[in-house]
Amino acid sequence: MTKSIEKLRAHIKKYSYYETMAALLSWDQHTYMPVKSTENRAEVAAEITELALTLLLSEETGDLIESAEQETLEEQDRDFLTIVKREYRDKKKVPQDLQVRMAKESTRAYEAWKQAKINNNFNEFEPMLKIITDLQREEAQCRGYETEPYDALLDKFERDMKAAEVDDIIEKLKPRLLELVSELEKGKKPRRLETGETFPIHKQQELNKEILKLMGFDFDAGNLSLSPHPFTASIAPQDVRVTTRYRENDPIYTIFPTIHEGGHALYELGVPPEKQVFIENLAASFGIHESQSRFWENMVGRSLEFWKFFFPTLTAIFPVFKNVNYETLWRSVNIVEPSLIRTSADELTYNFHIMLRFELERGMINGDIETSDLPGLWNEKMKSYLDIQPPNHSDGVLQDMHWAVGLYGYFPTYMLGNLYAAQLYNKMKQDIGDIDASILSGRFEELLQWMRREVHVHGSLYGPREVLEKATGEKLNIDYFMQYAGEKFRRVYDL
Amino acid sequence: MTKSIEKLRAHIKKYSYYETMAALLSWDQHTYMPVKSTENRAEVAAEITELALTLLLSEETGDLIESAEQETLEEQDRDFLTIVKREYRDKKKVPQDLQVRMAKESTRAYEAWKQAKINNNFNEFEPMLKIITDLQREEAQCRGYETEPYDALLDKFERDMKAAEVDDIIEKLKPRLLELVSELEKGKKPRRLETGETFPIHKQQELNKEILKLMGFDFDAGNLSLSPHPFTASIAPQDVRVTTRYRENDPIYTIFPTIHEGGHALYELGVPPEKQVFIENLAASFGIHESQSRFWENMVGRSLEFWKFFFPTLTAIFPVFKNVNYETLWRSVNIVEPSLIRTSADELTYNFHIMLRFELERGMINGDIETSDLPGLWNEKMKSYLDIQPPNHSDGVLQDMHWAVGLYGYFPTYMLGNLYAAQLYNKMKQDIGDIDASILSGRFEELLQWMRREVHVHGSLYGPREVLEKATGEKLNIDYFMQYAGEKFRRVYDL
Repeated sequence: MTKSIEKLRAHIKKYSYYETMAALLSWDQHTYMPVKSTENRAEVAAEITELALTLLLSEETGDLIESAEQETLEEQDRDFLTIVKREYRDKKKVPQDLQVRMAKESTRAYEAWKQAKINNNFNEFEPMLKIITDLQREEAQCRGYETEPYDALLDKFERDMKAAEVDDIIEKLKPRLLELVSELEKGKKPRRLETGETFPIHKQQELNKEILKLMGFDFDAGNLSLSPHPFTASIAPQDVRVTTRYRENDPIYTIFPTIHEGGHALYELGVPPEKQVFIENLAASFGIHESQSRFWENMVGRSLEFWKFFFPTLTAIFPVFKNVNYETLWRSVNIVEPSLIRTSADELTYNFHIMLRFELERGMINGDIETSDLPGLWNEKMKSYLDIQPPNHSDGVLQDMHWAVGLYGYFPTYMLGNLYAAQLYNKMKQDIGDIDASILSGRFEELLQWMRREVHVHGSLYGPREVLEKATGEKLNIDYFMQYAGEKFRRVYDL
Repeated sequence: MTKSIEKLRAHIKKYSYYETMAALLSWDQHTYMPVKSTENRAEVAAEITELALTLLLSEETGDLIESAEQETLEEQDRDFLTIVKREYRDKKKVPQDLQVRMAKESTRAYEAWKQAKINNNFNEFEPMLKIITDLQREEAQCRGYETEPYDALLDKFERDMKAAEVDDIIEKLKPRLLELVSELEKGKKPRRLETGETFPIHKQQELNKEILKLMGFDFDAGNLSLSPHPFTASIAPQDVRVTTRYRENDPIYTIFPTIHEGGHALYELGVPPEKQVFIENLAASFGIHESQSRFWENMVGRSLEFWKFFFPTLTAIFPVFKNVNYETLWRSVNIVEPSLIRTSADELTYNFHIMLRFELERGMINGDIETSDLPGLWNEKMKSYLDIQPPNHSDGVLQDMHWAVGLYGYFPTYMLGNLYAAQLYNKMKQDIGDIDASILSGRFEELLQWMRREVHVHGSLYGPREVLEKATGEKLNIDYFMQYAGEKFRRVYDL
């Protein structure tokens, strides 16, 4: 007789096929789909979402889990069961009809947000945002919490993280960041690079593919496409796709979204086959995921050693950069200054963008802030955190799509990712020694192997706390980020 | 109470969503999917095929059809019912598990074929081909036939066509083609164009997009991608995608697959919404489909008028062609000579490539030929039809993917397409007068509108015979092809 665990495996495998279809529909929508297909695509995506949820939340799943728990299992099977149980219970917390409503409304809200951003008009978006916010408040109630509703949503992205703990981190991090930023003001600010040239997109594509190859990205298990908002999509266990965007006058700009997304992709591809149970949610948390992209983007991609190593590759494709040296390039990608847009902020002030969003979304979910308060509060907080004033809503409260698609609780993981990355980086240096030398000679596989061994190996079996402790031997400690950032930026600013 | 016809519409709409997913999975496999996703993709494709078939072949479909037939229906509803019934009955002929096995094995066989072609190794492909051939033989038995098993498969692509009738056509066509080809030998053979230059792929892409736009292809309802074997994919009613391939040293070569696939796409996009019931099988037949691609490729794209009109566009992107004149270009794309590869054969000898394949696949399905006989028979027939010997299997028996993916019975539709195209072209000239002048001034919409009115308008409501007779007022007559070809090539060859 077939064991229940085997039946459960077959059952979940089938679910993963629906995940693949859903992921492909979504990846295609954001890359190659012609615009007239939009309406149809929404229906097709809804259909597959419903199929998938119906299968996962069926009585059969519950029964198979229950009887598999009675069986004597090998370690691999126990891990598998743990992963399945968590996903099942998590999805089970929210009534299916609320999930379907959320899926439908967020498609509409995404379109409304896109349009409002183009029109620079918050008011036309607000009614839709209110619907989404209310649904998210409802979801928080369904999920349950001890202290505050926001915790229920934060937990979706960062297991066992609480808003109060994020508060603690911010309380410690904020003064030290402010101190470092003001110290840098006494240093020599690098100049922004402007070549005045045009760089053909196909050549930029070539360059970015080269970078992904250098990082160890396997083009037989993924690809690189163009999309307005860079993202990484897991389509299947051996099919993880990266997208980036280009600026015709600035090929340096593009390199960072590409490396960033490449870092995400390496994580997804690095999870060992036996832990690849689902297509989504392969990772310990979104914060740990972000630690991977940030490590590659900032610790590697914005290091002096990287630019020294990479300079011949860059100038082979774009000879104009021979007029600058690699050190100037390195400095130019490490300018610290308050700016409007989160996604292009520097490593230090980036965290203020997150603090601002965390306060706002926490208030919205806990019921202290209404959507109509947002534009005013946004601008107030931009003033207080970064001392700048958005000239319009498109570059202010409307800049991110997260709230439109119901990703409340997501933003803090970006900041946590920065902190995790620095802590992992510190331990990596202890373990493998001279990382700078590895980067300088392009031996990125040493870095990747360390991440595989210490982080990727667990897949989603453990949460972020356990993974961080297993890899570094201690709890989250913001000293590592401040130490890394202090050393680096003092060097950049000649202090 | 909702009428059964309305319920049936909702039911079939849902089926069409599954078709969209299946089509996207397949398009993606042939364009962007990384190779390591292959095995998984086969499973996912099989899963969606099963879902789709289960829905279409359900008792519910049969019941809804039956009760809708009892209702008083408007013309549009009657047409809808006719189209649904035919598809339902057709799919019902083949057991679901055979269809699912076919879907799964053909995904694998396609990859095996691709690899074998690269390796120039028929033997490594043969076991997979045998599996596919056996499945196709089984399908022929399930579908049923009067005279020979092959008829059952031919009917899938060309409704009511029989192998014996194809035989008759070949018997008449072959001597007249041979006669014309040998007449041309007395003429002035155009020289093949070789620039010795390299033409960047991204510029070729630009050129090919321009051509599709000129033809009236709507890039908001489709796109152009790269694939090793050019094809057109209907993903959704307003989402029809074209692929082509490039040769770095020859931008003229690519133009024809692009125009060809563009012709297919215009047909799919030209079927009126009320006849767009399914995503697949929108057309009268594959032969009629091919008449559209051939019309655009050969009657338009290889005409002197087209090259005169197109010359400024071409030379704007590739100025090197200013060294040649448009007439030389026109002649160079109309050289008649025996060649190895079907897809790049001239309009006359192309038909010999089809005759050869027809004989082989007919023999394979009827049980007279085994897969192991193929390489030998291929080379023999190449010698007898075209008097050339393939130097390797990649350019011989392995050149086409059709058999790998189970498209037995498809090849004859290419030849029929040539013949239909000429007959439609003749009628179009009678109806709208000076087509040459339209082409010369780039008024392609006049040609497209005629095709929409006379051919596309029917969708799949009628079969190829009825569509041809409705559009031209008579049955298939090969004289039109011979007349068109004779006039054209005597002009090319200065006879």
